[in-house]
Amino acid sequence: MKSFLDKDFLLQTDTAKQLYHQFAKEMPIIDYHNHLLPEQIANDVNFENLTQIWLYGDHYKWRAMRSNGVNEKYCTGDATDYEKFEQWAATVPYTLRNPLYHWTHLELQRYFDVDKILSPDTAKEIYDHCSAKLKTPEYSVRNLLRKMNVKVLCTTDDPIDTLEHHKKIKDDGFEIKVLPAFRPDKAMNVDDVDSFNAYVNKLQAVTNILIASWDDYLAALKSRHDFFAENGCCISDHGLEQLYAVDYQESEVRNIFRKLTAGESISQPENIKFKSAMLVKFAEWDHEKKWVQQYHLGALRNNNARMLTTLGADTGWDSIGDFSQAKQLSKFLDRLDSTNQLAKTILYNLNPADNELMAAMIGNYNDGTVAGKIQYGSSWWFLDQKQGMTQQINALSNLGLLSRFIGMLTDSRSFMSYPRHEYFRRILCNILGEEIENGELPNDLAWTGKVVQDICYNNAKEYFGW
Amino acid sequence: MKSFLDKDFLLQTDTAKQLYHQFAKEMPIIDYHNHLLPEQIANDVNFENLTQIWLYGDHYKWRAMRSNGVNEKYCTGDATDYEKFEQWAATVPYTLRNPLYHWTHLELQRYFDVDKILSPDTAKEIYDHCSAKLKTPEYSVRNLLRKMNVKVLCTTDDPIDTLEHHKKIKDDGFEIKVLPAFRPDKAMNVDDVDSFNAYVNKLQAVTNILIASWDDYLAALKSRHDFFAENGCCISDHGLEQLYAVDYQESEVRNIFRKLTAGESISQPENIKFKSAMLVKFAEWDHEKKWVQQYHLGALRNNNARMLTTLGADTGWDSIGDFSQAKQLSKFLDRLDSTNQLAKTILYNLNPADNELMAAMIGNYNDGTVAGKIQYGSSWWFLDQKQGMTQQINALSNLGLLSRFIGMLTDSRSFMSYPRHEYFRRILCNILGEEIENGELPNDLAWTGKVVQDICYNNAKEYFGW
Amino acid sequence: MKSFLDKDFLLQTDTAKQLYHQFAKEMPIIDYHNHLLPEQIANDVNFENLTQIWLYGDHYKWRAMRSNGVNEKYCTGDATDYEKFEQWAATVPYTLRNPLYHWTHLELQRYFDVDKILSPDTAKEIYDHCSAKLKTPEYSVRNLLRKMNVKVLCTTDDPIDTLEHHKKIKDDGFEIKVLPAFRPDKAMNVDDVDSFNAYVNKLQAVTNILIASWDDYLAALKSRHDFFAENGCCISDHGLEQLYAVDYQESEVRNIFRKLTAGESISQPENIKFKSAMLVKFAEWDHEKKWVQQYHLGALRNNNARMLTTLGADTGWDSIGDFSQAKQLSKFLDRLDSTNQLAKTILYNLNPADNELMAAMIGNYNDGTVAGKIQYGSSWWFLDQKQGMTQQINALSNLGLLSRFIGMLTDSRSFMSYPRHEYFRRILCNILGEEIENGELPNDLAWTGKVVQDICYNNAKEYFGW
Repeated sequence: MKSFLDKDFLLQTDTAKQLYHQFAKEMPIIDYHNHLLPEQIANDVNFENLTQIWLYGDHYKWRAMRSNGVNEKYCTGDATDYEKFEQWAATVPYTLRNPLYHWTHLELQRYFDVDKILSPDTAKEIYDHCSAKLKTPEYSVRNLLRKMNVKVLCTTDDPIDTLEHHKKIKDDGFEIKVLPAFRPDKAMNVDDVDSFNAYVNKLQAVTNILIASWDDYLAALKSRHDFFAENGCCISDHGLEQLYAVDYQESEVRNIFRKLTAGESISQPENIKFKSAMLVKFAEWDHEKKWVQQYHLGALRNNNARMLTTLGADTGWDSIGDFSQAKQLSKFLDRLDSTNQLAKTILYNLNPADNELMAAMIGNYNDGTVAGKIQYGSSWWFLDQKQGMTQQINALSNLGLLSRFIGMLTDSRSFMSYPRHEYFRRILCNILGEEIENGELPNDLAWTGKVVQDICYNNAKEYFGW
Repeated sequence: MKSFLDKDFLLQTDTAKQLYHQFAKEMPIIDYHNHLLPEQIANDVNFENLTQIWLYGDHYKWRAMRSNGVNEKYCTGDATDYEKFEQWAATVPYTLRNPLYHWTHLELQRYFDVDKILSPDTAKEIYDHCSAKLKTPEYSVRNLLRKMNVKVLCTTDDPIDTLEHHKKIKDDGFEIKVLPAFRPDKAMNVDDVDSFNAYVNKLQAVTNILIASWDDYLAALKSRHDFFAENGCCISDHGLEQLYAVDYQESEVRNIFRKLTAGESISQPENIKFKSAMLVKFAEWDHEKKWVQQYHLGALRNNNARMLTTLGADTGWDSIGDFSQAKQLSKFLDRLDSTNQLAKTILYNLNPADNELMAAMIGNYNDGTVAGKIQYGSSWWFLDQKQGMTQQINALSNLGLLSRFIGMLTDSRSFMSYPRHEYFRRILCNILGEEIENGELPNDLAWTGKVVQDICYNNAKEYFGW
Repeated sequence: MKSFLDKDFLLQTDTAKQLYHQFAKEMPIIDYHNHLLPEQIANDVNFENLTQIWLYGDHYKWRAMRSNGVNEKYCTGDATDYEKFEQWAATVPYTLRNPLYHWTHLELQRYFDVDKILSPDTAKEIYDHCSAKLKTPEYSVRNLLRKMNVKVLCTTDDPIDTLEHHKKIKDDGFEIKVLPAFRPDKAMNVDDVDSFNAYVNKLQAVTNILIASWDDYLAALKSRHDFFAENGCCISDHGLEQLYAVDYQESEVRNIFRKLTAGESISQPENIKFKSAMLVKFAEWDHEKKWVQQYHLGALRNNNARMLTTLGADTGWDSIGDFSQAKQLSKFLDRLDSTNQLAKTILYNLNPADNELMAAMIGNYNDGTVAGKIQYGSSWWFLDQKQGMTQQINALSNLGLLSRFIGMLTDSRSFMSYPRHEYFRRILCNILGEEIENGELPNDLAWTGKVVQDICYNNAKEYFGW
């Protein structure tokens, strides 16, 4: 009987333990995609208590609480911080086998040296203990990042963002690189014409470029792309149901833009043409600047209109879609490859039914120019759990080169999510260790250990050029 | 070497054994969805022999026999009961690794204390032994249900059903609740206009409501919904390729109904509009009465026209489809949620590629009003086997709360299928036991055992309000 | 700690070892689908070195090398054979967990008794050792096939192929049956009208049948079908994104053919009608001649236009699609079944998300006439690896009869791929052995061993009638 969450957590063989403790454990972290708020890093804030750092913005936890029958008051409502924590503590035992159960206890151990299981019985004690620590300088967000040995992290930012916080962080001489990532989802979302026009207006204001045409619009966006680059950005990101890659003429897109800014409605084919064109433009800029581009594909968002109205987006009402992915994705990547404008690219899928499709797709554009040029991204969002990670690792291994994988990222809004890197590393080491012990891989710890370290850190470092 | 199907069948660790034997084993059974014939319970029939109880209505077995090269004569044809049994006995050894192999031998053990492997060598002996028992009062269908510790079972019934057998069962004072479930598939199936009109006529006859319009039609169906409720029904069920959730105006649906009853053909968009409207109506009634609604999604039925003509539906020619599920399902559930008319709901999928999609979908409507309000239903039909159950349990665990799961049902036409609950429980305990021993869960048998008992029985009891 | 690739490779239990060594190992091989070049067998060629046999035509290896950052020069370019080998040797350590890693070392062991791990350190030694052997008569391609105990193999041939090499092989009295397979993909591919007409012209030349109409076209193709049959062919094969099974009138197809040969463009619905009609014709001929028909479904080919232009098809730029499969596949098979013209059929899928769909589909047409009439084909191409094989075996087991499976094939272009049969057999025995030891199957080695031998050899022998 192994103890729960001991030092050999998830490591079932001696070889797995060696791989983890001797090779993986000490590697620094490059967290190349997350949703941390740069303002909090700029101001090096402290959280007042465990509820604030854990529950104020975490839709994973809200979702679990709601599924457990907890009233919204205790999720996003006006209950006190401790009342909310009590509800979360009462929910935790019911999350067994959900990744939240592991994450919660890993975070308690790694940040607070708390070994107890969170439950109503331990809620008060844990809350007080952790909240007290959180108020100390040692638990400022910068120190939390230092504690986890983070070297680089990339936030997710809209093109109109001023990046003032990123600048301040840099000016402060903070030794951890905190870089922006260019995520222009709103700049191509023409599903709602009014919102789109509001966005165009904001962009105009930020750039001081008068936007009277699609060409102006591109110029304005390009100026932001340049601005992001000046501020250390080298990654873009797109959150899409599926890639849009229909044929279009630039003249058509100019006309669609004209209609949009005139407040006219556009047809569904026009909608898709516009998005297809924008994706190509962004990708061309990414290639010009040698950025890495990321595509997060397959989320079905805002499924609960009632709660969207009440709480807004990203509050726990998103889901896994079953969109067609292969043909359009292939067409899009091929279009860029054909003109030699395909940047380094990372593809993420949300429906695990697409794992093998994605792992095979990257091979079509890995053309020998760079090892692992096209990456099959780490298991994402709903799939960011032991089985999801294992399946992503397996699909990549079977259909591509695991050894060239740039590895894990948190994708998180929480400063306490960094143990997910550890979680990933343990799973990776366990898989490799088991196969060595089973005779499916040679007992070559030096080589396998190097591969582990590459996946943990070196590959990402080289891939992004840091 | 573990013996085949011993008392620790499927239980690979000591903890799994403890969980099963100390917590799961003695829990009663709530079989909230099956296809048993209420008439047989009403009359408390005995089957004459093993062929009659096992092979007269079981398309799983027929399908295996046909795949094994057995002529239809021995499946559904005019061979004698023993000839049929001989063919089945000859097929069983070829079913190794198919769930039929486990089910067959579990059923022989649990109902007849037969430990032998069924094969041509043992066919005669087993047939005679079991058939003799089946003729005794101890093996009447009510006693078979008692033997398995069933507390409640729900059959599957058409709205025009008289429920006379359910009434008789109740009037007899049978201590096991035998409740109807409202399954109005035929009431919305307008693919064949003639069959639909025949159905409308039957409904008119049963209700004494003159059906001259869609409103009349709804009134008639609603009266049956009421009638079912009066007879203890609290569950509806729908068997659909996918949810239909297009926009419609009631005036349009009225017009479509008028066309249908005039014998006119309707277009495909009209067909979908009609179905979309009917689904909303049924769901609204379910919500009004606080029923639980079930959606069985993804079967591709009647693939073999030749055999459909000869044998009719549900004779073993159905299959797994690859229909789009997410968007329409989301739209349907959201429409009901928006007006606060979303009843407790159970979603079942037939294509395991949709497992994660479904497990994520339920989270969009678990709004904190009731723990586990929206359920991801147990692995269904073709997926009702060890791997299928494991994958459903894993998807639910990873994306939702396994602890709130209402658990297993037989979905069976056979009175001998109840060991499938045991099968499920063993798999569940094995999964939890292994994770405890691996240190992935705390070694807290009391809590894990409670979760096991909840999934086996308590959750369903509370969910359905029995 | 098990040694890498020892005699019990992949066999984790004693029972698995017994099943493999006592039952599977010595069974001959029927390789009923591959892409070997008959000319090389006809001429009984020797390869000059390891690069020529391993790297000249293997797009799996090229793909891995490109993903590893190897320049095209060393894959398909003008580097020397040894330079190419060096790049491959440098890539191999990076392929850990990819099937190439296992295949490479299995092939070194089985053909050359080389136990070393291929890497830059061992590259020269291994290259020299193996290349020297390859030049000896013992390593002619016929001897390579003999060494692997192959009894029958089927190549993949276009209808216009002269089959001269197959004839020579037969006339030579080569004791291994080398049979053609009829793969008319080009004969129905009307996506490019010019290529199609070029094909029609070639067919006209080969058959001496003037092709002025669709009926002529069918007559010419049928004459090739007859010709193939005369030369021992009893298998057809189709590589399709998905089955095409729309309704059509023969008169429409005649008209479409007229348009095509007049160089006129056809619409997308006409395109699909034409393909639908051709598939039915081919299938009818297959049934008439009692052939087995194969459908390889789901590849998304030629994703990289730039490399397609440079290198042509089948050079490593293909991928896994996510096409709708179930409805059209059902409709196609049912159409043939309805008129009692459904030949023995093998369905292969490339997207593992479709595994259960396929395994269920075969049951709809297994009508009891022949055991295992409709087969769910072995895991294919990207899925031809441990996990892929395991998942195919599991899907088939859970939804059909594993015991009636006709088993493995190489699908390979390489004369060194035969250890993949061994690989499959080890995986099969391991699965069965583990379940016996776990008590999930009876400890009946005689029966399980018979099932193993059937899947390895006997089932295919009987199925194809060899």
